[in-house]
Amino acid sequence: MTEEHTYSATSTNTRSILPADMISVEEARTRILQQFARLDPIEVPLLQAVGQVLATDVVATFNIPPLANTAMDGYAVRAQDTAGATYDTPLQLDVIGYLPAGEVFDREVAPGQAVRIMTGAPIPPGADSVVPFEETDEYGDTTSEEDLSARTRVRIDVEANPGANVRDAGEDIKDGETVLPEGATIGPAQVGVLASLGLDSVPVYRRPVVAILSTGDELLRPGDPLEPGKIYDSNAFSLAAQVQSFGGIPRVLEVARDTVEALTARIHEGLADADLLVTSAGVSRGDFDVVKTVLANEGEVGFWTVKMKPGKPLAFGTFRGDNGRQVPHLGLPGNPVSAMLTFELFGRAAIFKMLGKEHAWPRPLIRATAKDRIRNTDGRRFYARVILNEEGDEPTVSLTGPQSSGILTSMALASAFAICPEDTEAIEPGQQCDVILVDRERALYGAAGSAPAPSY
Amino acid sequence: MTEEHTYSATSTNTRSILPADMISVEEARTRILQQFARLDPIEVPLLQAVGQVLATDVVATFNIPPLANTAMDGYAVRAQDTAGATYDTPLQLDVIGYLPAGEVFDREVAPGQAVRIMTGAPIPPGADSVVPFEETDEYGDTTSEEDLSARTRVRIDVEANPGANVRDAGEDIKDGETVLPEGATIGPAQVGVLASLGLDSVPVYRRPVVAILSTGDELLRPGDPLEPGKIYDSNAFSLAAQVQSFGGIPRVLEVARDTVEALTARIHEGLADADLLVTSAGVSRGDFDVVKTVLANEGEVGFWTVKMKPGKPLAFGTFRGDNGRQVPHLGLPGNPVSAMLTFELFGRAAIFKMLGKEHAWPRPLIRATAKDRIRNTDGRRFYARVILNEEGDEPTVSLTGPQSSGILTSMALASAFAICPEDTEAIEPGQQCDVILVDRERALYGAAGSAPAPSY
Repeated sequence: MTEEHTYSATSTNTRSILPADMISVEEARTRILQQFARLDPIEVPLLQAVGQVLATDVVATFNIPPLANTAMDGYAVRAQDTAGATYDTPLQLDVIGYLPAGEVFDREVAPGQAVRIMTGAPIPPGADSVVPFEETDEYGDTTSEEDLSARTRVRIDVEANPGANVRDAGEDIKDGETVLPEGATIGPAQVGVLASLGLDSVPVYRRPVVAILSTGDELLRPGDPLEPGKIYDSNAFSLAAQVQSFGGIPRVLEVARDTVEALTARIHEGLADADLLVTSAGVSRGDFDVVKTVLANEGEVGFWTVKMKPGKPLAFGTFRGDNGRQVPHLGLPGNPVSAMLTFELFGRAAIFKMLGKEHAWPRPLIRATAKDRIRNTDGRRFYARVILNEEGDEPTVSLTGPQSSGILTSMALASAFAICPEDTEAIEPGQQCDVILVDRERALYGAAGSAPAPSY
Repeated sequence: MTEEHTYSATSTNTRSILPADMISVEEARTRILQQFARLDPIEVPLLQAVGQVLATDVVATFNIPPLANTAMDGYAVRAQDTAGATYDTPLQLDVIGYLPAGEVFDREVAPGQAVRIMTGAPIPPGADSVVPFEETDEYGDTTSEEDLSARTRVRIDVEANPGANVRDAGEDIKDGETVLPEGATIGPAQVGVLASLGLDSVPVYRRPVVAILSTGDELLRPGDPLEPGKIYDSNAFSLAAQVQSFGGIPRVLEVARDTVEALTARIHEGLADADLLVTSAGVSRGDFDVVKTVLANEGEVGFWTVKMKPGKPLAFGTFRGDNGRQVPHLGLPGNPVSAMLTFELFGRAAIFKMLGKEHAWPRPLIRATAKDRIRNTDGRRFYARVILNEEGDEPTVSLTGPQSSGILTSMALASAFAICPEDTEAIEPGQQCDVILVDRERALYGAAGSAPAPSY
């Protein structure tokens, strides 16, 4: 068996079947990413924007804080009036007012005067520093707020330096400053910054809608009763969960029956507003498959053999949507592990590119020592499902068990993929290898379940 | 100024104000976590369950695959019938049927017979192995599926071993097996496994509802026009985004005015179905604050000074909800950086515990070399906002700039927090320190923006 094959469609309205040949993972990814672009900006409420990418520079239109204000509860004073004050030689000032946060003091603080002031309140005109309560005596130990705010004299126990406990206007953000640049990924702190600028929504690059189609008369939808010879469709759901975790919006289509008409109708349904159509199964060498016929009829599709395992066969092309829009199509192998792995390697990058953060798709790549022998029989790049253990001095990986690409439970156990290069027949126990860390939570706490909690 | 203080409420219906003293971050976290438990299980659709924790063992009620089936498209044969077959000395078998996936073959394959079979279809009775198409000649090179499925003879070019290309029943999952244990966090592979078992929903520990309250007459809601002396409320939104990213459901309450009545009403509104109430501001030493009065009136609250910076003052207690339910309350400092940092250190752990994955709250803790001097002036544990750079041989960290806890933009730049221990006055450039990696995407791609894409 050679890895090369071509596929000749019998259908007369076939547009194009690209010649298939064995390509590297990198080549496949490059070809795929060429067909994707950042999606259009869309205005979304702040909290919906988390994980998405800013579609515009955000420029401040005022200072934050807007006015110089106090960082402490205390007395706003003229620093020069406190010169020489100590606990042994305290001074007294006249209290001319009480200023809570949110209000502005409209009188000037004259020599010998002070304003009782609460954290965040603007420094009154004339004052230049704040003496915190702890360095004053407000006379008496009443705990009644009314009593305190009526006081007319305060004892100052410590000399204040000019500017003490004063936050300058614009300390955080200056009027006119570009606070967040286009392209910034929005996290909780960015949400806070945008809110502080008074924004309740923000333009971000739209999340891609990914239509997911499973084909096969043998497939049942989860929730339906089991029938002899049939199996439940798991690919649509594992792929949808991947789409979701990569930041896309999954749309699981109904399972299509194995006829050209059913599949064509289903695909056009999926294309209505999808940014990517993902199918699984129907793209491997071997018998004719309805999927191939439809792929050939409805778009420009290449069938590739990618130098990887699991997941050699891959289809990629574009479909013509009903409104003339070209929708990229990624045709994944049907085995559950192969489907997830190829979507991890190619679908993730495509979704990140549509989100405007193409650069950020790669997972952490770490070096670890193999505890098991990782065999590579096919001369393709082998992605072994492994359990990463970072507890010791250096990280180690163990195989999850049998590596058949039909064994989805091997994916459920895995926290990482160990890479055995194309030209390496085996990674021996004790040898180091590259490991893609897919699920850190599982890596840290899933395997042993007894890692001591770090403290920080 | 001493770090100890007590607060004596004047209100007569004050229940309890715990004595405050200086406690470590660990002590504060331990005390807080004691008041939280895993929430009740709730049945949710598969795709909603991602990130949540299984509330029951999932036990298989059938084999997966349900029947032995073929891993390849080809011919199901009796292995002994192919003995001696080579490309030079091929054999011929009678084709007695065509079996697509999803159907069951009801006849027995007798000696000398074969069944044309598609990937996933059950192995017909009598057959024990599958010869892939590539190792047969189906006679002629027609590409018509109808022609092929009508063939009555096939040439076998290669000897098949018993079991060749056959996937055994139960290869992935065995009837009766515990496939996923209670406590497992659900990711895409788990979703796939659950779907393959026919499940379209699953019991998980409920996501906590976190009510978030900002107080202060100076606060404006983002979207409203700016007014003199006022600032936009950012804490509610940065905290809500944190809640969301930790796996909780944020509920941002309207800003409460600074009166006991307004605040009390707002808190009871927030408690209606909240699992945690988070407030910011109003818990530091200094003046009386309405928040403190209400806290004291409505629940059991302790005011702590935690040996950390930013974020020393912290209130924690429980409120009595309207239906007698005790709702934990976390009172954060008001400075934007302090609020986010304390919620990162305490709120994250609380949310993870309610989700049933208490062990998993810590972030990656890594060692990095400081490029700047990180000063610690207060004898508290200092969390410096830093930019982590992992490009070189060993990771380095640089300060984001000024470290005032009013500077929220310092959080937006930060990908990590460098820890300067309580008893260390400074980490000097070139020295190593512990670093909490909060935002890996930003760490890898946010700072330089030019990290070469790893390939895998």
